[in-house]
Amino acid sequence: MAQRELLKTQVGIVGAGPAGLMLSHLLAQSGIDSIVIEKRSRREIEETIRAGILEHGSVKMLVESGVSNRVIDEGYEHEGIELRFNGEGHRIDFRDLVGESVWLYPQTEVFKDLAAARDRDGGDVRYSVSETGVTGITGDDPRIQFTGEDGVEYEIDCDFVIGADGSRSMCRKLIPEGTRADNFREYPFAWFGILAEAPMSAPELIYARSERGFALISQRTETVQRMYFQCDPTEKPEDWSEARIWDELQARVAGPDGFELKEGPVTDKIVLPFRSYVCEPMRYGKMFLAGDAAHTVPPTGAKGLNLALNDMRVLHTALTEFYANGSEKLLDGYSERALGRVWKSQHFSYMMTTLLHNMPQASAFDSRRQLAELETLVSSRAGQTYLAEGYTGWPNA
Amino acid sequence: MAQRELLKTQVGIVGAGPAGLMLSHLLAQSGIDSIVIEKRSRREIEETIRAGILEHGSVKMLVESGVSNRVIDEGYEHEGIELRFNGEGHRIDFRDLVGESVWLYPQTEVFKDLAAARDRDGGDVRYSVSETGVTGITGDDPRIQFTGEDGVEYEIDCDFVIGADGSRSMCRKLIPEGTRADNFREYPFAWFGILAEAPMSAPELIYARSERGFALISQRTETVQRMYFQCDPTEKPEDWSEARIWDELQARVAGPDGFELKEGPVTDKIVLPFRSYVCEPMRYGKMFLAGDAAHTVPPTGAKGLNLALNDMRVLHTALTEFYANGSEKLLDGYSERALGRVWKSQHFSYMMTTLLHNMPQASAFDSRRQLAELETLVSSRAGQTYLAEGYTGWPNA
Repeated sequence: MAQRELLKTQVGIVGAGPAGLMLSHLLAQSGIDSIVIEKRSRREIEETIRAGILEHGSVKMLVESGVSNRVIDEGYEHEGIELRFNGEGHRIDFRDLVGESVWLYPQTEVFKDLAAARDRDGGDVRYSVSETGVTGITGDDPRIQFTGEDGVEYEIDCDFVIGADGSRSMCRKLIPEGTRADNFREYPFAWFGILAEAPMSAPELIYARSERGFALISQRTETVQRMYFQCDPTEKPEDWSEARIWDELQARVAGPDGFELKEGPVTDKIVLPFRSYVCEPMRYGKMFLAGDAAHTVPPTGAKGLNLALNDMRVLHTALTEFYANGSEKLLDGYSERALGRVWKSQHFSYMMTTLLHNMPQASAFDSRRQLAELETLVSSRAGQTYLAEGYTGWPNA
Repeated sequence: MAQRELLKTQVGIVGAGPAGLMLSHLLAQSGIDSIVIEKRSRREIEETIRAGILEHGSVKMLVESGVSNRVIDEGYEHEGIELRFNGEGHRIDFRDLVGESVWLYPQTEVFKDLAAARDRDGGDVRYSVSETGVTGITGDDPRIQFTGEDGVEYEIDCDFVIGADGSRSMCRKLIPEGTRADNFREYPFAWFGILAEAPMSAPELIYARSERGFALISQRTETVQRMYFQCDPTEKPEDWSEARIWDELQARVAGPDGFELKEGPVTDKIVLPFRSYVCEPMRYGKMFLAGDAAHTVPPTGAKGLNLALNDMRVLHTALTEFYANGSEKLLDGYSERALGRVWKSQHFSYMMTTLLHNMPQASAFDSRRQLAELETLVSSRAGQTYLAEGYTGWPNA
């Protein structure tokens, strides 16, 4: 093997999505050195359209850590959502119920803000790398190998490796099967998602339950909207004409109040799989998993990005403590502490999913019971508050 | 056919369980005449051991309508329950959360109180009847036929028939299949219930979730206790020795706090099936269904008797209005109004069941998610309040 060019840092981070970049940013602020490597190009990440609802805690993290104020200036603050069933809307007023709100701000923009902040602060982030490998995590000499965009073969000598390399994580696979638990749940449906050039149909997200299945009416900008409807996982985007898509969406939100969606050209169609996953523990020797590499939530709860940022908050605190006084106590507690919120979010996502989706095997009893669940919820301030706590984000643990 | 002895009344009630007797009692207080018939003997009903948790609204109904104060004097007021999981108890404090409580007072005692009140007030209640039939409910001449304990064949000429004849209701079967919806749900487990001669193990009910399955630690008197544990529906009481029963119950509540059940001789063993059922609508012509004849809830939510009493409250109001001014408006609205609470209770029972039981097909993910549901619930005052609202009983609709 040819001699590799050696790089040295304290924390080696695999993956430059929002999770990896956020950790690198936070560490830099604490005077801890890191290198981030990423196999995709920066443009590729910037052009991947990802939705995003940010909990108030995530917004606070972006703003207070000095990443950017763009989320406040350009994002949309939502003080509630609408639950729609039996053709009637019921607003869940987050501000009134829990004094908090969420922000509509796409994950792609969070990435751009973080990438720009790392540039601004002189962070070492290497995109378009290949041949990534990790060694030595069970001993005292963790290393990351990769081939740079420049064709040079590098090796990073670091104290810790962070696996923030997404749901098809290479890092996770380094944990031998017997020493990790793969907790999986598949749902018997998918989401058909569209982007449409149209005005907003509503100022806040609408979560609609209908006999035809679930629909989510979301927003993106004043002129581009994002909407989803529950579909069979085998549906193909090409089978759905614009007219058929709008008919289906309109049918799922129709009601005596005459509510209608504002239509426009559909510019993107995608079928999103629906599954839950949690890897336990989120640590293996000197390697720590975070974000999608460690867990996947169904999109109903809008928790994915928020969980990734929370993992990094916890990890940052633990690494800071380690470099300040050599204590590994918080590092040892990372997995359990992060998993607490992961599982709460998994439950919240499951609850939102089962509350609103048409379960393929549901009997008449199950369907009517689901309506009663919605009716009980919207008639109880406590029930609404419980939902609002989960949606806007629980206090940090 | 031999000539039948004709009886005349305003409301003919089939079934002298708590539901039928309560309606007869309430009607009498409004000056409306009724006859109640029942195929079981009075002693047979009195000797059928039935558990009972009464919502505060049910207690109020018994006391304020002058049935009896025994529920207050001899029942046990419970201001909360304990949710137990991971071997730790978490009290849900109803009094603090919603300002209400429930009463532990067996259904058998409610029956005795109502039967005594009907005796005291000169009510016409006929036990041990046979050959019951109902005719004319789709026309203007509803009649109930039966053979009395005295061997005489009777016919009741009445304005309305109330089908309060329990879960294997004869009255319900009079509704043609095409005109009623039978909403069914079966659960893949049962409850193994015991009565034991032992002191109370706890002052309030304990709902315990364990890897071995659910257990409910309840009470009856100072010296007799009632307990249940989730089991396979095919279990046979004779296969369970006293020692095996106590081992299983102890294992399901064991934990680091050292909690142990107080044991004693087991005097009764039973396997209770677990199912949900709702008949829609709860009316057919001049016949109204109520209580178990119209709906069955799993025992986890302790809602069965409370729903039956609520049906009768709604029906009493509607019949009183009819006899006061001839308006059938409330009678026409009976089914929908009663079903509102029935479905809320079905959902509550389902929620309590799925929150605490070991689902046979549950994956590791499902099991861990269930724990997160419990953890999220007990860490949220709103979540606890939502549960307490359902347990103690929602306001009347």
